[in-house]
Amino acid sequence: MAKYCFGVDIGGTTVKIGLFSEKEELLDKWEIVTRKDEGGSLILSDIAQSLSDKMEEKGITKDDIVGIGLGVPGPITADGTVLKCVNLGWGVFNVANEVSSLTGIENVKVGNDANVAALGEMWKGGGKGHKNMVMMTLGTGVGGGIIINGKILAGSNGAAGEIGHLTVNYDEEETCGCGKKGCLEQFASATGIVKEANRLLLKTDKPSKLRDIQYLSAKEIFDNAKAGDELAGVLVEQLGRYLGIACSHISAVVDPEVYVIGGGVSKAGDILTDVIKKHYEDNVMFALKGKEFKLATLGNDAGMYGSAKMVLG
Amino acid sequence: MAKYCFGVDIGGTTVKIGLFSEKEELLDKWEIVTRKDEGGSLILSDIAQSLSDKMEEKGITKDDIVGIGLGVPGPITADGTVLKCVNLGWGVFNVANEVSSLTGIENVKVGNDANVAALGEMWKGGGKGHKNMVMMTLGTGVGGGIIINGKILAGSNGAAGEIGHLTVNYDEEETCGCGKKGCLEQFASATGIVKEANRLLLKTDKPSKLRDIQYLSAKEIFDNAKAGDELAGVLVEQLGRYLGIACSHISAVVDPEVYVIGGGVSKAGDILTDVIKKHYEDNVMFALKGKEFKLATLGNDAGMYGSAKMVLG
Repeated sequence: MAKYCFGVDIGGTTVKIGLFSEKEELLDKWEIVTRKDEGGSLILSDIAQSLSDKMEEKGITKDDIVGIGLGVPGPITADGTVLKCVNLGWGVFNVANEVSSLTGIENVKVGNDANVAALGEMWKGGGKGHKNMVMMTLGTGVGGGIIINGKILAGSNGAAGEIGHLTVNYDEEETCGCGKKGCLEQFASATGIVKEANRLLLKTDKPSKLRDIQYLSAKEIFDNAKAGDELAGVLVEQLGRYLGIACSHISAVVDPEVYVIGGGVSKAGDILTDVIKKHYEDNVMFALKGKEFKLATLGNDAGMYGSAKMVLG
Repeated sequence: MAKYCFGVDIGGTTVKIGLFSEKEELLDKWEIVTRKDEGGSLILSDIAQSLSDKMEEKGITKDDIVGIGLGVPGPITADGTVLKCVNLGWGVFNVANEVSSLTGIENVKVGNDANVAALGEMWKGGGKGHKNMVMMTLGTGVGGGIIINGKILAGSNGAAGEIGHLTVNYDEEETCGCGKKGCLEQFASATGIVKEANRLLLKTDKPSKLRDIQYLSAKEIFDNAKAGDELAGVLVEQLGRYLGIACSHISAVVDPEVYVIGGGVSKAGDILTDVIKKHYEDNVMFALKGKEFKLATLGNDAGMYGSAKMVLG
């Protein structure tokens, strides 16, 4: 009899769900809305209902399901307890137990969304073929996920891989959302990149195409750097330096095989991985040189894949 | 029948060996000289002979030995291959296989010396009761060992826990032995601490008891700071800041429960752990605050304990 598992990635707006075969194929994927009203108390029952509907549609029984994996946008301990999840309105409770009792399926694994995305990229994406990998997600914020011997490194309080808050500038005076100063996220998130561009444009009189753009974005900066704009080039080098330094810190702690770069900013492509690699090599000790830097390939599906992989092992 | 294991810590001068019971008690410990002539080719056979002698002395047969653990001062991969060990004159070879064939004992585990010391401190020392721990050894250099779920994190090239080469000062102009600039080791090793003291004494005219000392040492600096000497106090704060920043980087990657500080510099005692903790809290994001900082307790025996623990599991 064929066996199946579900991979569920709970986001602030939608829940992405995938049905996978035990042979590691994606058979179906769909989305439901994340209902955040009533303190987020409807989210897990909505998911349970959706899984149940899909099983009925496909003629799958509970006995055919080897497990459910879930990615949650907050810190998760090893036993599946969420330690507050502001985005969903959740406090502290055991998500794994809750999903088990809602679905009647015993094997439920829960991970932090950035961590399960990293696992997904290792399984089917940019990190394929590697067992020791770090994923950096450069989006609205900067997140990370660390995979050691093919497994997620969660950390003692579910806060491993919080690489957006590595200090990469000890002289920064502005405060990060986390309360401290000089975090990677302040320079390498989509908003951080634009903030740095505006800072530079104010500091110098040099001409730049960037001055003509009403709403600057990371994409415009990369596009202009590729086209030879000098200040855009300076900004890309600076971004590469901050990311390279952050990766040098990460390597000195966990010595991975490969870095996989994802999130909206990574749409810039090879220019981004190349500039990170250059500054990484300049800022890391000899024994840690020569890591690979790759682009993520699964986009928004990474979390769904990684959630399933937690179950398939 | 009682069962035993050996824990062996290979240092540049002596090899420390412990005989342990399967019940995790240390039954005997002794040392032999590390013979580094002939490219270090005698070291493992000397160890094999010493183990054989001890087994004869105690009336223990090979069948009573559950395994041998070895700590080696160089990078070691997961399968027990050493990737050069300059201190011993070794190139690249599989230490585990070599020791197996010399002793006739199949179960041989090999780890990097800093990593096995960390495991030893987790088992019987400052990190007792914890499964996720980081050890920092502040001696001639700065080394580290990272324990995740009770196991050593070796890294893809055996270079995980190279925390002496975390960059803690992006403006430093002097070059570290590793080839880059601003490494923790340049400020927090025994020699780094004294170098920073001499820098400060040259930079200011302020009076300080430190000026009267012919051969400055880390110990003198701590002693004078405790006695209220202002410049010594400044140096201790600066050291604490560099170490606190390094720990903030480590936490953002692996989120441990506890930091254990060892090596000669740690003889300073609580003044050291207190000042690290203070600056750590000032330099880390909220989700990672509140870690414990403890002193190592096993001294030079940590590696011998940790080597045995690799075998006992």
